Amino acid sequence: MIYKDLNIEELEKELAKVNEEFNRLKGLNLSINMSRGQPSQEQLDLSMPMMDVLNSKADLRCEDGIDCRNYGVLGGINEAKKLLGDLIEVPASNIIIYGNSSINVMYDQVARSFAKGVMGSTPWCKLDKVKWLCPVPGYDRHFAITEYFGIEMINIPMSQDGPDMDLVEKLVSEDESIKGIWCVPKYSNPSGITYSKEVVKRFAHLKPKAKDFRIYWDNAYSVHHLYFDNPDYLDEILNECKKAGNPDIVYKFTSTSKISFPGSGIAALAASDANLVDIKKQLSIQTIGFDKVNQLRQVRYFKNLDGIKEQMRMHANILRPKFEAAEEILDANLGGLGIGNWTKPHGGYFISYDGYNGTAKEIVAKCKEIGILLTDAGAAFPYHLDPNDSNIRIAPSAPQLDKVKEAIYAFCVVSKMVTLQKLINEKKEG
Amino acid sequence: MIYKDLNIEELEKELAKVNEEFNRLKGLNLSINMSRGQPSQEQLDLSMPMMDVLNSKADLRCEDGIDCRNYGVLGGINEAKKLLGDLIEVPASNIIIYGNSSINVMYDQVARSFAKGVMGSTPWCKLDKVKWLCPVPGYDRHFAITEYFGIEMINIPMSQDGPDMDLVEKLVSEDESIKGIWCVPKYSNPSGITYSKEVVKRFAHLKPKAKDFRIYWDNAYSVHHLYFDNPDYLDEILNECKKAGNPDIVYKFTSTSKISFPGSGIAALAASDANLVDIKKQLSIQTIGFDKVNQLRQVRYFKNLDGIKEQMRMHANILRPKFEAAEEILDANLGGLGIGNWTKPHGGYFISYDGYNGTAKEIVAKCKEIGILLTDAGAAFPYHLDPNDSNIRIAPSAPQLDKVKEAIYAFCVVSKMVTLQKLINEKKEG
Repeated sequence: MIYKDLNIEELEKELAKVNEEFNRLKGLNLSINMSRGQPSQEQLDLSMPMMDVLNSKADLRCEDGIDCRNYGVLGGINEAKKLLGDLIEVPASNIIIYGNSSINVMYDQVARSFAKGVMGSTPWCKLDKVKWLCPVPGYDRHFAITEYFGIEMINIPMSQDGPDMDLVEKLVSEDESIKGIWCVPKYSNPSGITYSKEVVKRFAHLKPKAKDFRIYWDNAYSVHHLYFDNPDYLDEILNECKKAGNPDIVYKFTSTSKISFPGSGIAALAASDANLVDIKKQLSIQTIGFDKVNQLRQVRYFKNLDGIKEQMRMHANILRPKFEAAEEILDANLGGLGIGNWTKPHGGYFISYDGYNGTAKEIVAKCKEIGILLTDAGAAFPYHLDPNDSNIRIAPSAPQLDKVKEAIYAFCVVSKMVTLQKLINEKKEG
Repeated sequence: MIYKDLNIEELEKELAKVNEEFNRLKGLNLSINMSRGQPSQEQLDLSMPMMDVLNSKADLRCEDGIDCRNYGVLGGINEAKKLLGDLIEVPASNIIIYGNSSINVMYDQVARSFAKGVMGSTPWCKLDKVKWLCPVPGYDRHFAITEYFGIEMINIPMSQDGPDMDLVEKLVSEDESIKGIWCVPKYSNPSGITYSKEVVKRFAHLKPKAKDFRIYWDNAYSVHHLYFDNPDYLDEILNECKKAGNPDIVYKFTSTSKISFPGSGIAALAASDANLVDIKKQLSIQTIGFDKVNQLRQVRYFKNLDGIKEQMRMHANILRPKFEAAEEILDANLGGLGIGNWTKPHGGYFISYDGYNGTAKEIVAKCKEIGILLTDAGAAFPYHLDPNDSNIRIAPSAPQLDKVKEAIYAFCVVSKMVTLQKLINEKKEG
């Protein structure tokens, strides 16, 4: 049954059934939060042994003898640089370890460029106009940063391979006011796709008109596979840029937030030597150094990349059933109706749902009415403006499996209800 | 024997003796660092039991049930706000808990004001000129922040009671481009003085021409007494400002850096409700939240203000002998020569030495030559420009007691040597 092919009478008959189911769900007093990409309690418990690796008998000196309890070591301790470098396939010498939040690191890069420019360029605050490319749908917290600094954001469509590189290449080569692009290149937030080799190569070979243009490469989900036996592959961008003679064009970000504890991991930035010199000039004014005891705690716990991978397999074992259940329920309830598409990601934290145009806000509102909390409709677009009002981000990680099932089923009911009503209205308006 | 009263021959005779002693010291291959206000190993060891309060069996939920391991809680957990609020005599509701560095918090306030203004004012980056008042001698990292943002710094002389308030009142009432003042109001860095009730009251009653003028009140040494039975008293600035009808004029900063571990404490900002609304608008873009597990660790360890005070008594018992030894050696070796003055602080981390004009740089250089590392001469002044080249900051906290004694004695020898040479040159030039 394809909804669009039904006549008004058939649609109304269908709607009556769905309404009844909606009212039944409303009576259940559900309360399920699928709004943010938060690990579940069960996932948090995986990292509890980390709390034991440093105790009052521990030697809190790092490998080179520095006492991690005291001030100093601006760029982070060497073994933490090594660990996070291995995680994102970059030499330790090209890494800075920060505090607990990679979003904070990205914000600080934009803030620095705004106040002081990039490697000697005019500070962005002195320019009449600064623009930014935003592959959509994308990560709302990225867009919030550029919006906060008054940067004009330009939507870039996404395909299964990554952003529309024809458009990216054209825009950056023509417009000097374009200073950056937000990328989540692996298991992208929210679409789940991984940039192809071709896309990464074209990024590395970009020839932007603005010398201070930077790719903000948020590698948040580098090892966050759902299927460890068949993980997505992503080319390493710093190395690709170097090979392309473009070493300074990218800042790469990562953290252990969704590997250890989301609020208490360590974040890192990777960049070329020249970028790091520029960044450290600012960083040495901003702080004496970040929390080295926590850096040491993470390293002593994970030991090496194998330790991280082992941890991520355990995360995957908790997450995978939730994603598979969600897909199954979406297929069973919405499949064949022709009212929406949804992603089937191989990693990351999100399912991206694209519904019938003009229904997303109403679906999210109606879900809220029956106790299912989703990310605000439009959040995955700059200025919260989804031009089609069709995209919804679903985050099935935090609730327990049975709750995910309940919530996704309820989502399907709501999606049908709102779409049926929309189709009826459209047919009536004729 | 007052050096200035000696004739050239007597000075040269004296210098010959001192030179001999300098050469003996040089032969000892000393290596003692008194350049930064760092706690000693012994002090760091005091906080080691803190490493045991959270282990893998611990409940990592805070008082209101939030799981500290996950994302969120932008302004910090309530019990941490309460603890640091008690520490600086401010209600918990007027506190934001940040990451590990109060300098980072101060930097971020200046950066925010630069990019976006203060409570709706014109962003400072859009102004032709921004100026700042800098009581001198002061804290080099403060001055580095304002210098980084291109803010013109104006020296304000300090007396035993605090900054010259006649001058502060005059300047801020006349000049709208003056947007702030750096203050270390208790056991000041480096002079050790505590602002008098009168000075605090005059700060609270300031009527700056600029509505976006803020007092940056860095209460870094609130409980860092050397003499717990007779601590300095400082009026609470937020309350004084409120009483004066000036609630928004101040940001107050603190941290547990020199209470627990310097690199792994928690920092806080206290301000009026209106300021906090303004600040949180920015903070919600910059991060999802700071490290709550470490907030919980600090609270579970110290429990309350009494716990902090008990810890600080132990710190004082380690620090006090170093300061007393330093004073004794300075008195014994430089007393009565009329070539310099030094402070005898009741708390904090520094001794401030004011030598004969034009000798500070040379004293620091010669000390370095024999292995005694001091803060760079001029560091306590904006742009590193000590107009008299006379001030030297001595930080006796980090080395062990016997090393402090060796280093201070060596400092006295160098100080005599450099000053004698200076006096001889001056007399010869006539």
